[in-house]
Amino acid sequence: MSNSNYASLDPLFHPRSIALAGITTTNPEHWTRMFLDALLESEFEGPIYLVNPRGGEIKGLKVYQRLEDIPHSIDYVISTVPAKASLGLVEACAGKGVKAIHFCTAGFSETGDEEGVRLEAHLVEMSRRRGIRIIGPNCMGIYCPGSRMSWSTDFPKESGTVGFISQSGGNARILVSQAMWRGARFSKVISYGNACDLNESDFLEYLTADPKTKIIALYIEGVKDGRRFRDALEKAAKEKVVILLKGGATEGGARAASGHTGALAGSDVVWDSLCKQLGIIRVDSVAEFADVIITLLFMLPPRGRRVALLGAGGGNSVMIADEFTKRGMEVPLLPQEIINELREFTPAAGNILRNPIDYSQTMMEIEKMVRTAGIISRWKGVDFLIGFLNLVWPQSSFRRQMDKLIAMILEESIANSKPMALVLEPGILPEHTKQLFDLTQKCADLGLAVYYSHASAAKAINLVLSYNENHPVKVNK
Amino acid sequence: MSNSNYASLDPLFHPRSIALAGITTTNPEHWTRMFLDALLESEFEGPIYLVNPRGGEIKGLKVYQRLEDIPHSIDYVISTVPAKASLGLVEACAGKGVKAIHFCTAGFSETGDEEGVRLEAHLVEMSRRRGIRIIGPNCMGIYCPGSRMSWSTDFPKESGTVGFISQSGGNARILVSQAMWRGARFSKVISYGNACDLNESDFLEYLTADPKTKIIALYIEGVKDGRRFRDALEKAAKEKVVILLKGGATEGGARAASGHTGALAGSDVVWDSLCKQLGIIRVDSVAEFADVIITLLFMLPPRGRRVALLGAGGGNSVMIADEFTKRGMEVPLLPQEIINELREFTPAAGNILRNPIDYSQTMMEIEKMVRTAGIISRWKGVDFLIGFLNLVWPQSSFRRQMDKLIAMILEESIANSKPMALVLEPGILPEHTKQLFDLTQKCADLGLAVYYSHASAAKAINLVLSYNENHPVKVNK
Repeated sequence: MSNSNYASLDPLFHPRSIALAGITTTNPEHWTRMFLDALLESEFEGPIYLVNPRGGEIKGLKVYQRLEDIPHSIDYVISTVPAKASLGLVEACAGKGVKAIHFCTAGFSETGDEEGVRLEAHLVEMSRRRGIRIIGPNCMGIYCPGSRMSWSTDFPKESGTVGFISQSGGNARILVSQAMWRGARFSKVISYGNACDLNESDFLEYLTADPKTKIIALYIEGVKDGRRFRDALEKAAKEKVVILLKGGATEGGARAASGHTGALAGSDVVWDSLCKQLGIIRVDSVAEFADVIITLLFMLPPRGRRVALLGAGGGNSVMIADEFTKRGMEVPLLPQEIINELREFTPAAGNILRNPIDYSQTMMEIEKMVRTAGIISRWKGVDFLIGFLNLVWPQSSFRRQMDKLIAMILEESIANSKPMALVLEPGILPEHTKQLFDLTQKCADLGLAVYYSHASAAKAINLVLSYNENHPVKVNK
Repeated sequence: MSNSNYASLDPLFHPRSIALAGITTTNPEHWTRMFLDALLESEFEGPIYLVNPRGGEIKGLKVYQRLEDIPHSIDYVISTVPAKASLGLVEACAGKGVKAIHFCTAGFSETGDEEGVRLEAHLVEMSRRRGIRIIGPNCMGIYCPGSRMSWSTDFPKESGTVGFISQSGGNARILVSQAMWRGARFSKVISYGNACDLNESDFLEYLTADPKTKIIALYIEGVKDGRRFRDALEKAAKEKVVILLKGGATEGGARAASGHTGALAGSDVVWDSLCKQLGIIRVDSVAEFADVIITLLFMLPPRGRRVALLGAGGGNSVMIADEFTKRGMEVPLLPQEIINELREFTPAAGNILRNPIDYSQTMMEIEKMVRTAGIISRWKGVDFLIGFLNLVWPQSSFRRQMDKLIAMILEESIANSKPMALVLEPGILPEHTKQLFDLTQKCADLGLAVYYSHASAAKAINLVLSYNENHPVKVNK
C-alpha cells in the first residue's frame, strides 16, 4: 500500500466526530443502541450525534430528526437505518463532509434477492460519486481502542498489537472475547460484511502498513479480487505474522457464506496451498485463532520441540503426552540423575517422575512442585515447559493456592530461560469455570499463555513452532 | 463370561460391609478421607468400619487399631495403607472373610522400581492363596450407585446404563463429571489401576453380562492378556455399544502410561484396526467420551446424514456448516417453497433463510424461531436438527428466555419425529459459563443432548451415525 493509501484510510480509524443514523429512541435494549452504549463506555472523545426521524433525546444527547439538521461537520457515520433508506443517507452525508459510512444495515446482496443486489450496486455507485467510503453493509464496523471507537461495551479500552479483519461481526466479537480475557489486546478490529466498497484487501494493506499492528488475523468468507488479495497477503506475511481462518471451506459452509455476506468462497485446496506458500498460519475455528494469538503474544519462542509436561493426574498425563506427541513434539524421558534428584524429596508412590511428571500425590506440598519445576527447567534436555491440571480434580485447599503456585513455577521457568505455558481443563461446573476465569486473569497479568484443553494447546503450540521454524521471529512478548 | 464368573464378580459390586484401612485420623482434608466422605454422602447401607493404628473416632465412627479387631465379618476393604503394609493387610483380611481388597495404595509396579514390582508380585501371590480378589493397586476402585458404593461426594446417587472401565481414576472422575451434568447416569464405574489381579478383561466380561449396562466405555492404557481381551471386546461389542479411549496411543503417551500403571501400550495401528473390525467407537479424549455417550443416550438415531442448522450468528453459521460438512454430513439448501414460507413472517435483512438458518435479527421474537423450527422439522429434506448459539453473542433479555425457547423448539422436533441436539458455545466469562451450566441442566431434564463446540458436536454425531449405519441400534433414549 502506498503511503497515500494508508493516509487515506487512517482517518476512518480516527474520526473527530461520529453520527449514529437510525438509532432507536424507544427500546433501550434494541440492537441499534449498542453503538451508542459502546462509544460512551469507551469514552469516545469527539462529539456523538444521534439521528432518528422521531427526534427526542437519549442519555442526555439530542436526537436530530435528519442528519442534515446537525449543525456541524461529521467525519464518520454508523448507519442502522433500514436498507431502503440507505441511498437517502448517502445523499444527506454528502452535504456534511462525511468521509465514511459504516452500514451496519443489512438487506443487500447477502439476501440473494435481485432487489438487494441492485440496491447495493446503487449504494456503491452513489457513494463513489460523492467521495464517501463505505464499510459494509451488513457488519459491525470498526473497533479501534486507540481512538476509542468501539461497538461493544465489553471490549477493552487499552490498545494492543493484534489486528483482526473479520467478514463476520459475530466472529469478531467471539474472538475479542476469547482472547481479551487471556491478555490479548487489539490495535484494530474490522468487521466488514459484504465489502461493497472497502474490502479485505484494503484493510489488509492498511494493517500491513499500520505500525501498531504486529499480528494480523483474518476471517475471510470470500474475496472480491483474488489477484489483489494474494499480493496483499504476500506482502502482509513478509512483514507481520498472519493467521487465517477461512469460512466456507466446505461445500456446506460455502453455501452458508454466500448467504451470510454474498461471498464466493473458493476452493479449500487453493487456500491451503496459498497459506503454505506464503507462510501464513491457518486455523480451523475462532477458538484456535485465540489459542494461536495467545501463544504468539505470551510464549517465548522455544528453541526446539522437546517438552516437559508437569502437572497432576496419571491418566491426564498420558492424555497430554499423547496430544503433544501427535502434534510432532517430543516428550523425552527424564535422565536417571534427574529422577534421582527428584526422588530425594518426592515419594515414588502416587507420583510419576518420568515425563510427564505427575505430582498427584504430593501436589499439596507446593514448595516441592516449585523445586521440581526448577530442576526440570534447568535440564538441557527440554526446550519448554507445560503445566497441566484438570480443575475437576484437586481438593479445594489446593485450589486456593494455585495462583501462588503458578506464579512461582513461572518464575523458575523464566530464571532458566525456558518458555512455559499452562493447560487448565475446567469441566462445566460453575465453581470450576469461575475459578478458571480467575486463574486466567492472573495468568494474563503474569504474561502466561493458558489453554483449555490438551488438544488445543498442542495444536496451537505446534502451529507457532512450525511458523517459527520457517520464519524469523516477528513477535515478541 | 460364564454365569459362574459373573456370579463371582457381582458380589464385589454389592458388598454388605466395607472397611476403610489406612484412613487418616488427623487431617479431614487428607485424600484418604475421600472414601468415607463419599460412602456417607451416597448413604451406603451396610456398616462402614475404619482402621488406623492410632485408633480414635471419625464422624462418630469408631476407628479400630487393627482390622482384626473388628468384631464382624467384612465383605470388602478399601486400602489406603502404605504399600509396605499391604501384605500384612491381606493376612489380616483373610481371617475376616473379606472377598476383595481395593488397593488405592500406590507404590508398586508403576514406579518401575524392582522393589515395587516384587511387592506387587507378592501381593498377588498372597491374595490368591487366601482367596481374596484385588482391585488395583494404584486406583480409585468402584463407583456403583445401585449399591451406594462411591468414591466421590460429587457423583450422582441415581443409577444409569453407562458402564465405565478406566485404568485411570482421574479420567474416571473427569468423565463422570463431564457426563453427569449433561444427564448421563452410570451403572458401574471401575478404576482398576495396575490390574495385578482383576484386570480389564474381567471387568469387560462382567459389564457385558451385566443387565444394567447398555453402553460400555473403556479407558485402557495397556492390556494384560491380549488374546483374552480381544475375545472379551468382540463379545462386548456384539451385545452392547462399546466406546474406547486408548491412552498411550503415541510413543510419548505410551511412556507416560508405563509410568502411570506399568502398562505396555501396544501399537496404535493395531488398536485402530481392532476397533474398526469389531465395531467399536474410538474416541481421542475424555471430553469426546462424554460427547459420544450423550449422543447415544439422548439423540434419537437420525435416519440419515442431512442436517438442518438453526441458530444465530452469520459467521457462526458458516463455521458450524463447515464442521458438519467436514464430518460427512450434508447441509442441504432449503427449497424455495420453504424459504417463501419463512419469508412470510421473517424479515430478510439480518436473517439468513437458507441452511444454516441464521436468526440473528429476529432472535428476540421467539415465537418466530419456534414456528421456523416447526417448518424446518416438518421438511422431508432433512434427517435431524441442530440448534446453535454462542453465549458471548445475544443480549441478556434474549438469554432470559432461552430455556423456554429450547423446550419449545424441542417440542416441535419431537412432534415431527426429527432428532435434535444443541450446540452452545460458552466462552469463559463466568456469566456465560454459569448460564451454560444452568441451560445444560435444563436440557438434561428435557433429555436433549448439548455440545460445547461445533467441532465436538460434529465429531460425536458422526461417530454415532457411522456406528448406527453399521449396527442395529442398541441404545435408545
